[in-house]
Amino acid sequence: MIERLRTKNIRLSIIKEMELRGSKISGVVSLAQGIPSFETNEHIKKAVIEALSLHNIGKYSLSPGLLELREMIEETLRKDGISYDHNNEIIVTVGSIEGLAATLLAILEVGDEVIIPNPSYAAYAEAVRVAHGAPIFVDLHKNDGWSLSIDALENAKSKKTKAVIICQPNNPTGHIYPESTIRALAKWAKNNNYFLIFDEVYKDFNYTLKPIFRLEKDSRYRGNCIYLHSFSKAFSMTGWRVGYILAGRKLAQEILKIHDALVTCAPVISQYAALAALRYQDELVNGIMLEYRKRREITRARFKELENFFESETPDSGYFFFSKILFENSGSKDAAIKILEIAKVNAVPGIAFGPAGEGYLRFCFGRSENDLNQAFDRLKNYFNK
Amino acid sequence: MIERLRTKNIRLSIIKEMELRGSKISGVVSLAQGIPSFETNEHIKKAVIEALSLHNIGKYSLSPGLLELREMIEETLRKDGISYDHNNEIIVTVGSIEGLAATLLAILEVGDEVIIPNPSYAAYAEAVRVAHGAPIFVDLHKNDGWSLSIDALENAKSKKTKAVIICQPNNPTGHIYPESTIRALAKWAKNNNYFLIFDEVYKDFNYTLKPIFRLEKDSRYRGNCIYLHSFSKAFSMTGWRVGYILAGRKLAQEILKIHDALVTCAPVISQYAALAALRYQDELVNGIMLEYRKRREITRARFKELENFFESETPDSGYFFFSKILFENSGSKDAAIKILEIAKVNAVPGIAFGPAGEGYLRFCFGRSENDLNQAFDRLKNYFNK
Repeated sequence: MIERLRTKNIRLSIIKEMELRGSKISGVVSLAQGIPSFETNEHIKKAVIEALSLHNIGKYSLSPGLLELREMIEETLRKDGISYDHNNEIIVTVGSIEGLAATLLAILEVGDEVIIPNPSYAAYAEAVRVAHGAPIFVDLHKNDGWSLSIDALENAKSKKTKAVIICQPNNPTGHIYPESTIRALAKWAKNNNYFLIFDEVYKDFNYTLKPIFRLEKDSRYRGNCIYLHSFSKAFSMTGWRVGYILAGRKLAQEILKIHDALVTCAPVISQYAALAALRYQDELVNGIMLEYRKRREITRARFKELENFFESETPDSGYFFFSKILFENSGSKDAAIKILEIAKVNAVPGIAFGPAGEGYLRFCFGRSENDLNQAFDRLKNYFNK
Repeated sequence: MIERLRTKNIRLSIIKEMELRGSKISGVVSLAQGIPSFETNEHIKKAVIEALSLHNIGKYSLSPGLLELREMIEETLRKDGISYDHNNEIIVTVGSIEGLAATLLAILEVGDEVIIPNPSYAAYAEAVRVAHGAPIFVDLHKNDGWSLSIDALENAKSKKTKAVIICQPNNPTGHIYPESTIRALAKWAKNNNYFLIFDEVYKDFNYTLKPIFRLEKDSRYRGNCIYLHSFSKAFSMTGWRVGYILAGRKLAQEILKIHDALVTCAPVISQYAALAALRYQDELVNGIMLEYRKRREITRARFKELENFFESETPDSGYFFFSKILFENSGSKDAAIKILEIAKVNAVPGIAFGPAGEGYLRFCFGRSENDLNQAFDRLKNYFNK
């Protein structure tokens, strides 16, 4: 019967595969999957315990989410100069990945193409395939600072193109696309009648002095732009499975149908946790970002010790180093597996992020300082043997 | 841009539409959506608060779910003589609806047909459409006690048939398919190489003296049968969004890829809530079922007062009366809307459950005694005017 399934061409992501592989070897330090090391903040725990006694957590929320949470999201966005109506332009989702799945399942007819600049987040291509679409990769290059050119998109488009997925800031490169790029991209997509899906889960990670430009402010693109947000990264809440979508009213109402069919609504307890996260946003995010800056410095310093083996740019955003392999290897996957098995350090092979990621390894510095130092001690030992 | 979406043929379920309609009229008593009136049990709340301090709730679980929960599910099943391996035959999902979506997205090629006996749960047809399949309805009849015949399935099959969805016990009819029917169905599906998806969310609702037969016990059907379970109904946990899938190893591992692409994992906090639910299963489920028996009696008595307007069979399972309309009407939807607007009682039009549901209204008696009595006072008043 298994041969009657359509999942042959759908893979478990290489990130998950590496984590699974690592879990079978004892004593591995993982810098693979992007999991923050922090526990759920005490403010959030307290709010959750309060909600348990004050509210009927046991009952579905409305499909787009709790009214209080949508109102709070609207209010939070307004502080950033962004205006979305909680009534029909905000949908609370089961993390940004469910937001992406619902969006793609709403948008894509069978065989429609989705352009994915790469290297970029590993799960996009599979999400497109799950929705019966075809991922079309556009290569980004380190020599261009991982920037995106409209020419490259223009070359990749076809009659079947329906959408583009942009990870802003980009994972794994840490690159923040500048305002000029985002504006050019938006104009190009609108002229071509393409949907533009922005994955902004790292929007709060900014190690530069310049703010990250947010296209949400520009109301001309409400009809074709969808923004995916998550509480997972900036609030260290991956296990709570909560995020949200922003889109113009008509578009959001269509995506809502799919969201409803996939999950009915986001878990209510997690929606109360998200409400508390936004209430204490400044304190929580600032605290976590301070820590990440520190870990980024540590990782930068430790990579310096390995400069004969990796060319490591320090990222502007996110919590990854996407490091070019300088040592002899037969592909990033083989290199990652070898390092995992011998040095007992888990990293993600660059190929996981698309063909242009080949030749790189991704290391997550969201893990604890202790894990970081132990991992680099092992790597140093491994490479200097 | 909206015309470029594929969601034209996908509707928000009529149940949600009725709830939305009702929410705009003040003072409505809703017996529409199947929401239990009970709050989350204190045992569960206590376990959740404990988990908040003992475990890292903030971190993803493995994609198939927390090890402890899967072990507990395996153990619970074993007491019922059912043996599924927590390692690779159990997947914890975001409610049974996500389990259904993941299953259908794993199984269906574009245009594949899924046979749905109807009346049955409103969301199946939309879930099939979301996965690019085509729902094929097979009519069940009140005169046959809502039973299912293999002949009817045989007549509905085509070269494109890929799967059958069976709600056992059935919502909205409350019918429990007997062992002979389930066995015949299983044999027929296997001979035809069809997948058989059982939605068992009402398995703990049994007002008869006979146990409900569970095909899970028969290992011959592991390769083509998928069982969807939920904590929502029997434990009154709809808001927690947690359920699980049972399937043979190979099948489960393919569905897991889609589950991972849709949601990564079920919310971790809800998985701890589910763990507590299973720990206190007997106490919790018995307590809730006692209450439902009482409400079923009340509803039966109150429908007696309306016997000139509804023919109401008392259900063997679930928490719905699926009542035949005897009064003059121009379709179940019009009737439901009129009753909602004039009597301020919300019920679901039978057409929501497929074409064979036309001519009926569904009333949920999972709501509080107070709501039930108030609703019937209003209906009596409405019909006797």
